[in-house]
Amino acid sequence: MPNTLYLPELREMLAENDEAGLREFCTALHHPARTADFMEGLAADEAWDVLRHAEIPLRAEIFGFLDERKQVEILQAGDRAEIAQLIGEMPPDDRVDLLNRVDSEIVAELMPLIPAEERRDIQRLSAFPEHTAGAVMTTEFARLSEDLTVGQALQEISRQTEELETIYYLYVVDDADHLRGLVSARQLVSAMGKPNTRIGDLMQRDLVTVRVTDDQEEVAQKVARFDLLAIPVVDAEHRLVGIITHDDVLDVMAAEAAEDAYRIAAVAPLEKDYLATRLLVLTWKRGIWLTILFFGAFMTAFALDGYQAVTETIPWLVLFIPLVISTGGNSGNQSATLIITALSTGDVSLKDWWHVVHRELLVGVILGSFLGAIGYLLAVVMAPDWRSAFVIPLALVLVVTWGTLSGSLLPLLFERLGLDPAYMSNPFVATMTDTVGILIYMSVAQALLF
Amino acid sequence: MPNTLYLPELREMLAENDEAGLREFCTALHHPARTADFMEGLAADEAWDVLRHAEIPLRAEIFGFLDERKQVEILQAGDRAEIAQLIGEMPPDDRVDLLNRVDSEIVAELMPLIPAEERRDIQRLSAFPEHTAGAVMTTEFARLSEDLTVGQALQEISRQTEELETIYYLYVVDDADHLRGLVSARQLVSAMGKPNTRIGDLMQRDLVTVRVTDDQEEVAQKVARFDLLAIPVVDAEHRLVGIITHDDVLDVMAAEAAEDAYRIAAVAPLEKDYLATRLLVLTWKRGIWLTILFFGAFMTAFALDGYQAVTETIPWLVLFIPLVISTGGNSGNQSATLIITALSTGDVSLKDWWHVVHRELLVGVILGSFLGAIGYLLAVVMAPDWRSAFVIPLALVLVVTWGTLSGSLLPLLFERLGLDPAYMSNPFVATMTDTVGILIYMSVAQALLF
Repeated sequence: MPNTLYLPELREMLAENDEAGLREFCTALHHPARTADFMEGLAADEAWDVLRHAEIPLRAEIFGFLDERKQVEILQAGDRAEIAQLIGEMPPDDRVDLLNRVDSEIVAELMPLIPAEERRDIQRLSAFPEHTAGAVMTTEFARLSEDLTVGQALQEISRQTEELETIYYLYVVDDADHLRGLVSARQLVSAMGKPNTRIGDLMQRDLVTVRVTDDQEEVAQKVARFDLLAIPVVDAEHRLVGIITHDDVLDVMAAEAAEDAYRIAAVAPLEKDYLATRLLVLTWKRGIWLTILFFGAFMTAFALDGYQAVTETIPWLVLFIPLVISTGGNSGNQSATLIITALSTGDVSLKDWWHVVHRELLVGVILGSFLGAIGYLLAVVMAPDWRSAFVIPLALVLVVTWGTLSGSLLPLLFERLGLDPAYMSNPFVATMTDTVGILIYMSVAQALLF
Repeated sequence: MPNTLYLPELREMLAENDEAGLREFCTALHHPARTADFMEGLAADEAWDVLRHAEIPLRAEIFGFLDERKQVEILQAGDRAEIAQLIGEMPPDDRVDLLNRVDSEIVAELMPLIPAEERRDIQRLSAFPEHTAGAVMTTEFARLSEDLTVGQALQEISRQTEELETIYYLYVVDDADHLRGLVSARQLVSAMGKPNTRIGDLMQRDLVTVRVTDDQEEVAQKVARFDLLAIPVVDAEHRLVGIITHDDVLDVMAAEAAEDAYRIAAVAPLEKDYLATRLLVLTWKRGIWLTILFFGAFMTAFALDGYQAVTETIPWLVLFIPLVISTGGNSGNQSATLIITALSTGDVSLKDWWHVVHRELLVGVILGSFLGAIGYLLAVVMAPDWRSAFVIPLALVLVVTWGTLSGSLLPLLFERLGLDPAYMSNPFVATMTDTVGILIYMSVAQALLF
């Protein structure tokens, strides 16, 4: 929900070109994210007109909290020189993300206007493939030499603090930028009483690091596991090339959760947000999987074809086909989701497979029996007599149990094969349980009624 | 995968009671999480025997990184006095979480052995309902008075730093603990040159806070939105009662992502991990939704019952029932997941509903036509002639479009009603598309073939 509280005043100030008022609005809310929230109702050009009244560092900060679509619109439409200045001021990782979303002709026009040092930094960071540590990291962090004393280090960082995203971890490097260790702001403050201590004697060695080519999901897991504020990113020679901070890790986690959700629903992950994705791209990302599943569903037609004698002789059996197979699919979905989630959080690992089978078998039999009992009541109404109605509960027990077993074992199998278990998505489990469910249902009917 | 590299050495040292060796193991790996990783292959009693050789603060730290099941086992089996000492040393939020998972008789035995101050803290924190800010927060944070100078504040925190989880934000409170403002460690360090500045003049006012009763999901969203390291938790009188730190926010996000995944698969969220959840609880959490869906699926039997004349006259139509309805269900699942995810990330909001309908309608028609064309090829093989086979493509276009429309609109409707859109889970969408899909399929058949 956009916050519309100040919109009338903002529009009035814009109309009157009230420079002092607009400047005050930009600073008055104490946090750039809050200022951005109050500007959400403005169009991109209006928002940019407001922002131009803020000092450049604050302007870049507020801009960074606007929603992504508005950021892109502003970048495409704004005065090139002013936009280049804004980009120069943004955090290195954020501006690369943003430029990736802007039309390449506009990027080509902007790049020559960006100061040389920033331009090289953008080019270096853009070279890393998406979803790697290199693409997420920032190149602004505090570096110290191990020969400094605590007193010198404190002076040094109070000097650097203006331009750095985080000063809570200070990285110790040698002359060739090899990562030697880390001193936390906490350690420095505790050691203030002994200002002549060498940083080299104080620092933690043997740090938890990630390689620049590591997948962002691994990075997020490491930061979460070790409760870090930031993690250093090193190259193949253990040179420190960047850091990834806790706020970027939160963004990575949100992106990965969305990606897993897409996979579970058999949608190829989108690169942009839903509304910004072009219709044909959206159709394609859904169509590929839908088509594969459609071919899988062909099997249900062939399965039923083999039992045409049964369905034509006993037509009431047809009424229960959707009920039986969808119940199997639902129980399979539940198992698959539970196991995929437990695998990703580490609550379950491959060595637990026997334990999982045991549990799912029991759960399947209990749930199947319960649903079978209810299903029998419905079947008695629709079947010609109470005896033949027994097909339904028997089929339900077997189909639900098949659902829980295949739903739990398929993700484990994928994990064993080194594939992402989330690909063993719910629709796949459902398609498989559909076909096997029909075979089970029809065999039970044939055995009992013929 | 447990790291088994040091297991033989650890077991040998345990057998020989090599105190010096075990003590060294506990410190040698530089990070308690790493030490815990190397102990993963040990049984709970062995792990505890190793840990007892570490100094108590380090022991509590390593213990905190062991997996949850092992922590509970150690707590239940260890010597009560030693365990009480360990609990006294743990971070306030973590120990409350842990005690919630331990049998209540054992908690009752342990509590009297825990020092009075920690015991009261545990009781206070346990009183907050699960999933609220109060239940996630820690009560250990740095407090300052606004009358201190920068110099005094630096001394004060270098004294407090030992016992605090985080010193990066220092909270300024009045005598009655009302939250007045915040000074970051970065601000203090930058102001070192002017040690006589009053904290009250330096501090940021008007902070982003959460109420103790707020839901943990809101807390995580606020921390992510404002890029915070920690967020202060206040009561109804704006008294500071705790803080929630970035590492706990990561845990909350992981837990919420798992909860959403469960909802999407129609499983009531589990409180413990999959293997630790008792079988009857697991069955119940799945059974309630499965039963509701089962009753929903009854509708498919009634729907088919109304068209018995059609299916009995033209038996080949039966073969395509699962194919048609599951394809509608799959396309509905995709839409529902896309919209639920976009709603939760804020990429889509209610005001976009018309835009969403427009897109989903087009996607539905394109995908339905494509799948219909493929489906026609299969239908020609199974139907008696090429004319009657046209039922299949026509039904597929309509059913797939119905799937995309209902799959996208139902989560929006839930959002509009103030309900969590994730409850409009995939199985619900699938159950609804099943019934409507049968009605569409049968009506098309009746219209074309009778």
